[in-house]
Amino acid sequence: MPLRVAVAGASGYAGGEVLRLLLSHPEVEIGALTGGSNAGTTLGELQPHLLPLADRVLEPTTPEVLAGHDIVFLGLPHGQSAAVAEALGEDVLVIDCGADFRLKEAADWERFYGSAHAGTWPYGLPELPGHRAALKGTKRIAVPGCYPTAVSLALFPAYAAQLAEPEAVIVAASGTSGAGKAVKTHLLGSEVMGSVSPYGVGGVHRHTPEMSQNLSAVAGEPVNVSFTPTLVPMSRGILATCTAKAKPGVTGADVRAAYAAAYADEPFVRLLPELQWPQTKSVHGANSALVQVTLDEHAGRIIAISAIDNLVKGTAGGAVQSMNIALGLPEALGLPVNGVAP
Amino acid sequence: MPLRVAVAGASGYAGGEVLRLLLSHPEVEIGALTGGSNAGTTLGELQPHLLPLADRVLEPTTPEVLAGHDIVFLGLPHGQSAAVAEALGEDVLVIDCGADFRLKEAADWERFYGSAHAGTWPYGLPELPGHRAALKGTKRIAVPGCYPTAVSLALFPAYAAQLAEPEAVIVAASGTSGAGKAVKTHLLGSEVMGSVSPYGVGGVHRHTPEMSQNLSAVAGEPVNVSFTPTLVPMSRGILATCTAKAKPGVTGADVRAAYAAAYADEPFVRLLPELQWPQTKSVHGANSALVQVTLDEHAGRIIAISAIDNLVKGTAGGAVQSMNIALGLPEALGLPVNGVAP
Amino acid sequence: MPLRVAVAGASGYAGGEVLRLLLSHPEVEIGALTGGSNAGTTLGELQPHLLPLADRVLEPTTPEVLAGHDIVFLGLPHGQSAAVAEALGEDVLVIDCGADFRLKEAADWERFYGSAHAGTWPYGLPELPGHRAALKGTKRIAVPGCYPTAVSLALFPAYAAQLAEPEAVIVAASGTSGAGKAVKTHLLGSEVMGSVSPYGVGGVHRHTPEMSQNLSAVAGEPVNVSFTPTLVPMSRGILATCTAKAKPGVTGADVRAAYAAAYADEPFVRLLPELQWPQTKSVHGANSALVQVTLDEHAGRIIAISAIDNLVKGTAGGAVQSMNIALGLPEALGLPVNGVAP
Amino acid sequence: MPLRVAVAGASGYAGGEVLRLLLSHPEVEIGALTGGSNAGTTLGELQPHLLPLADRVLEPTTPEVLAGHDIVFLGLPHGQSAAVAEALGEDVLVIDCGADFRLKEAADWERFYGSAHAGTWPYGLPELPGHRAALKGTKRIAVPGCYPTAVSLALFPAYAAQLAEPEAVIVAASGTSGAGKAVKTHLLGSEVMGSVSPYGVGGVHRHTPEMSQNLSAVAGEPVNVSFTPTLVPMSRGILATCTAKAKPGVTGADVRAAYAAAYADEPFVRLLPELQWPQTKSVHGANSALVQVTLDEHAGRIIAISAIDNLVKGTAGGAVQSMNIALGLPEALGLPVNGVAP
Repeated sequence: MPLRVAVAGASGYAGGEVLRLLLSHPEVEIGALTGGSNAGTTLGELQPHLLPLADRVLEPTTPEVLAGHDIVFLGLPHGQSAAVAEALGEDVLVIDCGADFRLKEAADWERFYGSAHAGTWPYGLPELPGHRAALKGTKRIAVPGCYPTAVSLALFPAYAAQLAEPEAVIVAASGTSGAGKAVKTHLLGSEVMGSVSPYGVGGVHRHTPEMSQNLSAVAGEPVNVSFTPTLVPMSRGILATCTAKAKPGVTGADVRAAYAAAYADEPFVRLLPELQWPQTKSVHGANSALVQVTLDEHAGRIIAISAIDNLVKGTAGGAVQSMNIALGLPEALGLPVNGVAP
Repeated sequence: MPLRVAVAGASGYAGGEVLRLLLSHPEVEIGALTGGSNAGTTLGELQPHLLPLADRVLEPTTPEVLAGHDIVFLGLPHGQSAAVAEALGEDVLVIDCGADFRLKEAADWERFYGSAHAGTWPYGLPELPGHRAALKGTKRIAVPGCYPTAVSLALFPAYAAQLAEPEAVIVAASGTSGAGKAVKTHLLGSEVMGSVSPYGVGGVHRHTPEMSQNLSAVAGEPVNVSFTPTLVPMSRGILATCTAKAKPGVTGADVRAAYAAAYADEPFVRLLPELQWPQTKSVHGANSALVQVTLDEHAGRIIAISAIDNLVKGTAGGAVQSMNIALGLPEALGLPVNGVAP
Repeated sequence: MPLRVAVAGASGYAGGEVLRLLLSHPEVEIGALTGGSNAGTTLGELQPHLLPLADRVLEPTTPEVLAGHDIVFLGLPHGQSAAVAEALGEDVLVIDCGADFRLKEAADWERFYGSAHAGTWPYGLPELPGHRAALKGTKRIAVPGCYPTAVSLALFPAYAAQLAEPEAVIVAASGTSGAGKAVKTHLLGSEVMGSVSPYGVGGVHRHTPEMSQNLSAVAGEPVNVSFTPTLVPMSRGILATCTAKAKPGVTGADVRAAYAAAYADEPFVRLLPELQWPQTKSVHGANSALVQVTLDEHAGRIIAISAIDNLVKGTAGGAVQSMNIALGLPEALGLPVNGVAP
Repeated sequence: MPLRVAVAGASGYAGGEVLRLLLSHPEVEIGALTGGSNAGTTLGELQPHLLPLADRVLEPTTPEVLAGHDIVFLGLPHGQSAAVAEALGEDVLVIDCGADFRLKEAADWERFYGSAHAGTWPYGLPELPGHRAALKGTKRIAVPGCYPTAVSLALFPAYAAQLAEPEAVIVAASGTSGAGKAVKTHLLGSEVMGSVSPYGVGGVHRHTPEMSQNLSAVAGEPVNVSFTPTLVPMSRGILATCTAKAKPGVTGADVRAAYAAAYADEPFVRLLPELQWPQTKSVHGANSALVQVTLDEHAGRIIAISAIDNLVKGTAGGAVQSMNIALGLPEALGLPVNGVAP
């Protein structure tokens, strides 16, 4: 009997991508779909690419509507997930695509989000050491942010192997879907096409402490992160260019060996052959991450670059991958590994 | 035991897309992959989005390499398919993604392609009346051109129901992958981004007689086609805007009824609800076609618009759909129906 | 002494483009800039590309603010121009970038705009027969719609020379700036990139009667127009593909001769050499229009295609060109003729 | 009497942009236009956006053709400029848009370009301390690389004021025109649209020593540069994200003051108001650079970001600006300051 899944926030980009993936998942059945201001609208108007669900009508996001499901995905504005999860009870697998339960330190949460800390749930990035075990059997999953996913996959092997100094400098390019479906002038097609623009510069982007948390945990020391995100003219994809000074004596072979070991058995991360660099299009629509690394000997820095689809590995795919682990299903079940290119 | 498939021309866009779809198909196993000048190169360098095939090396396109497969897809330059098919023998299912066997009239072929007519194979557009039956059990399939697929799906119900005068005016917008992977200055990103450009104007595009052939067959009278293709700044997708004068007395209800009937049971074509128009992004990466139609009473014209992904429903997806029919498999097996959007 | 110019609606795309052009115009001085909800904001925040005006603050659109200028450009929502123009008085040159005064027939206006007809002003498309004369010395100019500009330039020579049957079928592709700066979900970058979408299909787009008006006037008979606009993933540019049946006996040479004669002395329209087709990028940022035409003998249709920048020749450039004529200045003064490409 | 200008390499992107700017320059007259394999072709086919030059035919790049001009712009492949310049003689102003004469250290040249060092010419980035003086009256100008222009403008004020540690980490995003007009598979529109891709990673990009040279000169100590360029889906524009550790005790106010002082009187560089960040579209087609800077106190790094148009301020505009200085003309003569946006 299939597992019954509800999606709260089905009109947004994260919710839509969760649905696209679930429609190809052999063990689930799609139940209630809810929206905020879009309740009452058909999904065909809001997500015309999800053909089998075109006639489904969005319901309001209430405990009653979400009740009676085995799994509930939440794609809600910050601060709303805790109450919904509590109402669902402890037997329901709740997967929060929002930020509410990602950070361990209340001080980080309060500084970057300006509200009270809701708590911490098992973190849905199975590739990080120890996380796969923590996800098994859990009923609560905090889906990582898209940038922290890309950055952590690019850098954690270097930190786990003690190869890099604890100061990372990261510049990431993201497609516009990362900014969500809310209508804002600077996200208009006329504004973004033909333009690259930075935002959240100077250490203020909310994903910064999440990156630092992930890298510090594997490094065993606090890793300070300088993070600059930029918006580029494409719908999907993140390319994270991550650099850190190499610790004294580290060689290019050390770096390569650490990454090869870290990703030898990962179903969704591919360390590219030397000299080939990742590009976002290769993972468009896929749950895969492409990673490459090199040592710039003149600058003395490790340069690690990852490419993911922000809506798949960076959100909905990571969520479903973690769901599979939590439920004891094959980890890769129902998830696309090939990008849609060109 | 899975069916063993070879792909000749695996380095191109059509070949790459055939592979992407076959990787998700439960009944096939990917055998030989061949290329022309790219023989000897790994697929990881040529098609980095096809992760499971990254280490496969392209072989030369020879009868020996292609022998021993149940199915062979051909993505070859015009004029090369006949010899390859003959060498493969009559028991192998040969699916030609090129143009060689699409046209029935030798005169049409000679006028538009400037060489001798190779023949005519069953035409892989199952939605056209009679074509599904012709594909069952066949060992030879001519995959339609991408524009003729989009145009035929948009217009055939009007002609089949005798609603339209036999002069169609069609303007289609296509993503650049339709022009293939050959390097030409006008296909450079710097040239195509921010630009729309027509080409093959004035009745000279090679897909024109193929459209006329398809529409004439259902109309029962020769349908004259004025076709203008344009290149737009996106990788994939075709939007075909097709208009024809309505025959006297035809009403909007007649038009709608004809289309509703034509597509009521089609797994890959969706007639949109009234007032909603197709957009190419909704079918990005999917084998689906979205169709909408209206009667402009002031102009007296039927306006029918379809959106497809030129590489999926317009090439590789149509090929696999036809393969499924030919082999007696469920027609939709292994084919994506949802677009990757946004 | 320079002419003093005010721009009402300076925060929008049309207003911004008027300013960009006026900043290079040797005979004008930029006075008041007004906005609606943006009054009080610096232009540097709203139009960061207009560096010399970055510190200017938008004022509210009131008669007091607009008073005391020689020329006033209006980039206002439909229905607001008449009152503003009346308050300015008869000595001020008022140039309306909106639709209010474009249509001659009140019935057309009421049917397509759903409000009372404001009147008709001299129409700012100097290339149309007789229009240049009507613009000389005028104090009121109705700037044409962007699509009617592109379509009229593509087709009027054929109609003026009695070469085409009075039924035109037009499909146009437009960049998203044509839809303005208002925030709407379907105009988000995430939605438009990678997609082509039709809108206003079936004879309901408001520019339809304006095209018909222009073509009918030169044809000397009513020209029925079937018009389908599509949105393509670029910021600027219109490519209009316009076809009409050739009248009996018309030859390709007739067609070419008519276009060559029509555009022999036009400073901003270039009839391309045979076989070269216009692309929008060639006129990006320029007031130029590129036109090409051919006779499809098999289909019996004239195919005429034009490319313009919707914000320049299609709006602000056409406005400044008409301003030059009205003021007795050299027609091309201050206007860019070269596109910014690639 | 106008100065007579020849452009060698007029079919490429740099040459085309030089011509676009010269067409608006009041003191020059365009003479010979030359090309390599394109000699004999009209400019209308190669650069259809340059309407007034459409009928000009490219000549071969020979000393005879280039003789008799006051100014010669060179847009030639690496290694060809020295011989051409020598043949022209010392009285002709030769402006090399290529790399041959940019680097001071022969060792740098040999390491990154793999050939013998041709020499060093005055460097056409007038905003760098001392460079304006060096350009006055010169007959030889080395136009800077596009990335070094963007990076130097972003970072030199910090180094000139001794605010930054001598290790800079730079990630830059560039439009595809920076890669030139040569046809390569990875530059096809189908490949670049929807994708971000890094290249020249790990300290191997040829612009790296040029950046280091510029920053070291103002810092008075060697500045080590880690540089990662990425290709983004747009035709034009560079966004350079440049960071360096702040020296001990440096405050945000120090940083701001240094930049405000550096750019107070520059005609083409605008330091944005605090909190507003540059975007490439604002300078599309313009010779302007937008710069913003902040101090990330948590990370202890100065984050400086610049946006330029790689073909204008990054190549042709910087060349014309330097030409104006060399000739004693007003520095900004004929150069566009406003971007073409949206």
